[in-house]
Amino acid sequence: MTTPLAASARDLAADTRTLSDLLEEMAPDLAMVESAIGRIASPPAGYVRDLVEYVRGFGGKRLRPALVMISGRAIDPSAVGETHARVGAVVELIHTATLVHDDILDGSLLRRNRKTLHELEGQEVAVLLGDFLLASAYAEAASLEDRYASRYLSKITRTVCQGEVLQVHNRGNIDLPERDYLEIIEKKTAVLYAASCEVGARYAGGSDAHVKALHDFGMGIGMAFQIVDDVLDLTGDEAVVGKSLGTDLDRCKMTLPLIHFLAHGPAASVERVRETLTARRGGSEARMIREAVLAAGSVEFARARAERFVDDGVAALAALPESPAKSTLRRLAGYVLDRRR
Amino acid sequence: MTTPLAASARDLAADTRTLSDLLEEMAPDLAMVESAIGRIASPPAGYVRDLVEYVRGFGGKRLRPALVMISGRAIDPSAVGETHARVGAVVELIHTATLVHDDILDGSLLRRNRKTLHELEGQEVAVLLGDFLLASAYAEAASLEDRYASRYLSKITRTVCQGEVLQVHNRGNIDLPERDYLEIIEKKTAVLYAASCEVGARYAGGSDAHVKALHDFGMGIGMAFQIVDDVLDLTGDEAVVGKSLGTDLDRCKMTLPLIHFLAHGPAASVERVRETLTARRGGSEARMIREAVLAAGSVEFARARAERFVDDGVAALAALPESPAKSTLRRLAGYVLDRRR
Repeated sequence: MTTPLAASARDLAADTRTLSDLLEEMAPDLAMVESAIGRIASPPAGYVRDLVEYVRGFGGKRLRPALVMISGRAIDPSAVGETHARVGAVVELIHTATLVHDDILDGSLLRRNRKTLHELEGQEVAVLLGDFLLASAYAEAASLEDRYASRYLSKITRTVCQGEVLQVHNRGNIDLPERDYLEIIEKKTAVLYAASCEVGARYAGGSDAHVKALHDFGMGIGMAFQIVDDVLDLTGDEAVVGKSLGTDLDRCKMTLPLIHFLAHGPAASVERVRETLTARRGGSEARMIREAVLAAGSVEFARARAERFVDDGVAALAALPESPAKSTLRRLAGYVLDRRR
Repeated sequence: MTTPLAASARDLAADTRTLSDLLEEMAPDLAMVESAIGRIASPPAGYVRDLVEYVRGFGGKRLRPALVMISGRAIDPSAVGETHARVGAVVELIHTATLVHDDILDGSLLRRNRKTLHELEGQEVAVLLGDFLLASAYAEAASLEDRYASRYLSKITRTVCQGEVLQVHNRGNIDLPERDYLEIIEKKTAVLYAASCEVGARYAGGSDAHVKALHDFGMGIGMAFQIVDDVLDLTGDEAVVGKSLGTDLDRCKMTLPLIHFLAHGPAASVERVRETLTARRGGSEARMIREAVLAAGSVEFARARAERFVDDGVAALAALPESPAKSTLRRLAGYVLDRRR
């Protein structure tokens, strides 16, 4: 995953159309996913249905189902249909469930510019609705003709939870090595991207080599996505990002810019930030920390690391023949780096 | 489910050996389940493993896996083996996950005389570990040769979550009709008992009629179990029950004794309790409410209703030939009524 590919990720980013252009192109596929999500998760009427409808938009970008569909198309467009849409919906529901639960953990107030569910209806309802979405996703996966998705995605969800537990367990661990951080984000974020691509490719009849290529692509952009997320939490504009920011510092969650800064920043500045974090005052000293981390070049370091992951992911696509879908995947990779929210 | 069966449940209870006798008889079966639980849910080492080991004992009675095994034996003892143990473990892990999440919802401090997980490690870890246990259960169910359990149990879990959401949503609804209460406990509790019996019977090759008989048995004792649980929360001894009690009143959760009292108790007394509940002072006035509910005979009413559910469940067993397993099921039914914790 570490082959340097001469600034190609930057080139991609410059060449990227906006996400809305990309999504428009994928609109028919995503409409199928959307209708599957409703069928799978929304009860016919009542309170639970209202809750599901409210949180449906939380994972608004629908990147994971998009990866299922496009990975399928990169193998064989004629093989992509209802099954892919159902798998895409399953992946999106697993993701939405983790968002609903994450918001409780992070004490976040906003998600996509709306109140988080625990803010609106209380944390009891948020815990239970997350469980309901997970159960709905598994029930749908289990009902598929082919059992691969059901077996694979339940294992992946287990890994995601392990990654999240490790992350919570390492809050306040200001000596967390970069290696352990990378293991955590691989588990909690990247494996679900990799799985989306892998299942999409496999259900389109991809060869083992092609399935692996798409898995590796997903893993690369998943790693990059999480690093960019961490950077946005530190430097983003809350109104643009549409969710509570600064929660990582509030909760003393170690992110790549911070880890790099603590290891490589100027001694006096590092000392001050370490003291602040140890005293659990990261949230109230967010501006000072942000400025110190930026001044040390640690945000640039993190962005460069994300670019390397994207480069590695895009390099894996070389195993696949050129196709419109492959070109869309490349542009999606560029978006992951370029996004502002 | 409403055929009256002349006090037979009371007779059963009188005839019941203690649960420890029953469990001793089932020890070899439950040892297989226990080893499956460890294999399915415990990672090889580390923090997540420690957490899993800590919460493994929460569902200590192992009633649901016992029902899987004995229901199988009631059909064909020679058909009960590793698959039944794995299904029993899956059911127990789903149950344990809901306990871990329920304890957060109820703000409970104790579970089986030990600290609840959110008390010990924080609610973030408790939310995530519940998710991890659910994912582990689904992954195991999906890995079974036969896909019936995977499909059925994920649907059932969905129903359980719906029941729990409805219960939380109806907290403080002091006009909750008995019918709605029964629907909630059927969804949140009884369906998992029914499913345990049904899957056990089906995986032993039971006919549709025999599978239905065991399903109905499970539903009956599941309903009774929850009603007895509600009674214990009101009248039990915390040291004996081993978990936080009085939480239903604290949270203004409507239970059968309370619903019956509000509908049929003496007017003055009902008025006082309604006012207390409306002002959300149920927790601090628990003694007054308990005495009023007891004096009105509403606890007896609830116990009698639980007995009727057990009678109905035991009556369903008539479809099965006599066998040692069937006799064990009858004694388990008696225990459900007679238990003190």
